[in-house]
Amino acid sequence: MTNTLSLPRSVEWEETHITLLDQQLLPGKVEYIELKTIKDVWDAIVTLKVRGAPAIGMTAAFGLALAAQQYETDSIDEFNELLQKDKDYLASSRPTAVNLFWALERMVNSITNVTSINEAKTTLVHEAIRIQVEDEEVCYKIGDNALSLFKKDDRVMTICNAGSIATAYYGTALAPFHLSRERDIPLQVYACETRPVLQGSRLTAWELQQSGVDVTLITDNMAAHTIKTKQINAIIVGADRIAANGDTANKIGTYGLALLAKAFHIPFYVAAPLSTFDPTIASGEEIPIEERNPEEVTHLHGQQIAPDGIAVFNPAFDVTPNELITAIITDRGILKGNYQEGIQTLFNN
Amino acid sequence: MTNTLSLPRSVEWEETHITLLDQQLLPGKVEYIELKTIKDVWDAIVTLKVRGAPAIGMTAAFGLALAAQQYETDSIDEFNELLQKDKDYLASSRPTAVNLFWALERMVNSITNVTSINEAKTTLVHEAIRIQVEDEEVCYKIGDNALSLFKKDDRVMTICNAGSIATAYYGTALAPFHLSRERDIPLQVYACETRPVLQGSRLTAWELQQSGVDVTLITDNMAAHTIKTKQINAIIVGADRIAANGDTANKIGTYGLALLAKAFHIPFYVAAPLSTFDPTIASGEEIPIEERNPEEVTHLHGQQIAPDGIAVFNPAFDVTPNELITAIITDRGILKGNYQEGIQTLFNN
Repeated sequence: MTNTLSLPRSVEWEETHITLLDQQLLPGKVEYIELKTIKDVWDAIVTLKVRGAPAIGMTAAFGLALAAQQYETDSIDEFNELLQKDKDYLASSRPTAVNLFWALERMVNSITNVTSINEAKTTLVHEAIRIQVEDEEVCYKIGDNALSLFKKDDRVMTICNAGSIATAYYGTALAPFHLSRERDIPLQVYACETRPVLQGSRLTAWELQQSGVDVTLITDNMAAHTIKTKQINAIIVGADRIAANGDTANKIGTYGLALLAKAFHIPFYVAAPLSTFDPTIASGEEIPIEERNPEEVTHLHGQQIAPDGIAVFNPAFDVTPNELITAIITDRGILKGNYQEGIQTLFNN
Repeated sequence: MTNTLSLPRSVEWEETHITLLDQQLLPGKVEYIELKTIKDVWDAIVTLKVRGAPAIGMTAAFGLALAAQQYETDSIDEFNELLQKDKDYLASSRPTAVNLFWALERMVNSITNVTSINEAKTTLVHEAIRIQVEDEEVCYKIGDNALSLFKKDDRVMTICNAGSIATAYYGTALAPFHLSRERDIPLQVYACETRPVLQGSRLTAWELQQSGVDVTLITDNMAAHTIKTKQINAIIVGADRIAANGDTANKIGTYGLALLAKAFHIPFYVAAPLSTFDPTIASGEEIPIEERNPEEVTHLHGQQIAPDGIAVFNPAFDVTPNELITAIITDRGILKGNYQEGIQTLFNN
C-alpha cells in the first residue's frame, strides 16, 4: 500500500514568484511567503526563513532564475553581466554555505552554450528545477536505503532536523520515516529537542507530525533513559561534513548519542548525500567546530534563563569518530566497515 | 588560606518570621521573602519557592516552630492538639516529600517530655535550628570527603542543583565546589543546564557564581563534546534515592552522564547524605520514575516551543546502575566497590 504524504515543501517555483515555508515561524505558525524579487530571496536566506544546505541552495537557484526573467536586454553579454552580479549578491547571503555557492555556480554554468536571451531565461528555470528534482531523488534513495535497515515497529531515535524541509523533499535522516509512511510500515520515532536552538522540537517534531509519523518528543538528557526503557532499536542522524575516514561532524549532541548507542549495543547510523563528504579532510580532527553566541544558551525567545554574566561554552557541532558509526547511508548505497576505502570507492565511481 | 563564602542561605530563622530565598525568581531576581504565618510557609512550599528535600524539611520545621509561638493556651494537651493540626497542614504541602514528614515528625517528638508551654515553644525553635545545623554539618562532611577526590585545577561536570540552596548550606554534589572556594583550591565546574526545568542554568550556575566558583554553563547535549575537548576529570551528581545495592535515582540525564564517564574512563561520583539511602529497596528496578507534565517540555516561561498536540515523554528521574558509579560520597565516608556491603555496614554502625 502506498500513502500520499501530506508533507509541505520548503520551497516551490511558481513562475512569477517563489513560495517559501517560513521556518522561523514554526511550529507556532505555518506560513508561506511569496518571494517576488531577488531582494526578497536574499532577505529570506539572511533571516533564516529557509535553512538546511540543500534548501538554501535551491532557494538561491530559484532566486537567480527569478531575477533573470526580469532582465531587459537583448545582449547576451549584458545578460551574463547582470547574472554574475546577482549571483554574487545571492552568494553574500550566507557566506559559509557551500551548497549555496555550488548551486549558484551550476546555474551560471548552465547557460554557457545558449544562443538567445529567451533560451537563457528558460534554461535557468529548468536548471533550478533540476537541482530541486535531483535533490529529491537523492533524498529518496537515502530514505530507501535507510528504511532497508529498519523493520516494522522499530523504535528509532534522532536529533536535530535532517529533514524534508531542509532539502527538496524527504530529507536525509528523516527520509526513512517519511518513506515508512508512504509504504505503511509503522515506526516509532523519538526526537531529541536539540538544545540550544531546538531544531528537534520546533522542526522535526512538526515535520514528522505533518506526514503522520508516530513521533515522541524528549529533551536531550532523556536519551539514555529513553533508549533503555522504550527499547530503542537504532539511532539515525544527518551530517554536516564527513571526513575521508568517515568521522562525522553533525549537530552538537550527536557524539553523545553515538556513545550511548555503543553502550546499549544498538546501531548508530549517519544518513547523508555524497555532497556532504569532504575527501580533502583526512579525519574529524581537521574539522573546525563553530562556537556560537552564548545568548543561544542563556536566552530563549528573548527571555533570560541563566544568570547575568555566566560563562557559556556553546559549540554548534561535534565530531563522531568513525568507529562509533555502524553505517553511513548515502544515495549511492550503504557504507560499512572500512570507511576510508568505502568513501574512496564512492568518489572513484 | 580560608575564604569566607558569600553564599546565600535558602532559609533563616528570625524569631518573629522566617526569611526565605525565593528560588522561583532565580536567576533573574534575588529576592528574600518574609514568612510570618504558617499559611505563608505552606504557600511557599506549595509554590516551590523553596525546593530541595532538606531545605523543604527545614522550612516546614521552622514553620511549625513559628506557628507554635502564636498558640494562646495554658493546656499542654491543647498545645499538642494545635501542633498536630498544624503538622498535618504543613505535611499536606508536598505529599511525596519524605524529608518534610521526617522533619515534622521530629519536631512533634521533640516536645514529648516538656513540662510547660514555654519550654515547648523554646524546644520547638531549638529543634528546628538543630535540624538546620545538623544538615549543614552533614553537607560539610560530604563536601570534605568529595573534595579529597579532586585535585587543584580539576575540571568537574555536574547536572541539576544538588546545591547549597537545596540544603542548609554547602549542598551535596556542589559542596566540594563551595569548600574549594573556602580553601582556595581552584576547580573548574561545567554545569549542564538540566532540561526541562533548567535547575542547572537557573540555580547551579547562579549558586556557584555567588561563591565565586569558576563555572561554565552548557546544554545537556554538549556533555560528550565538553568532556572530550575540555578534558573533564570527573562527574559528580546528587541523588534522590539510593537502593540497597547502590543503584541511584537522580535527575533525568544522570544516567547518560554516567555512561559517558565510563566511555571516557573518568570517575563518576554520587554525593548524598545517609538519609537518601533506602535500604528497603533492593535495586533501582524497584524505584518508580515519576513522569511529569508534557508542558515542561513543550513550553518555557509560558511560551510554546513545540507543535500543538505533540506526544511527549517526560520522565523526571532516571536510575544509574551501581556498576557505573565509581564512589558514593556520604557524610559518613566514601563507599567504593561492593555497595551492598558498604551500605549495610553504614546502617549497622
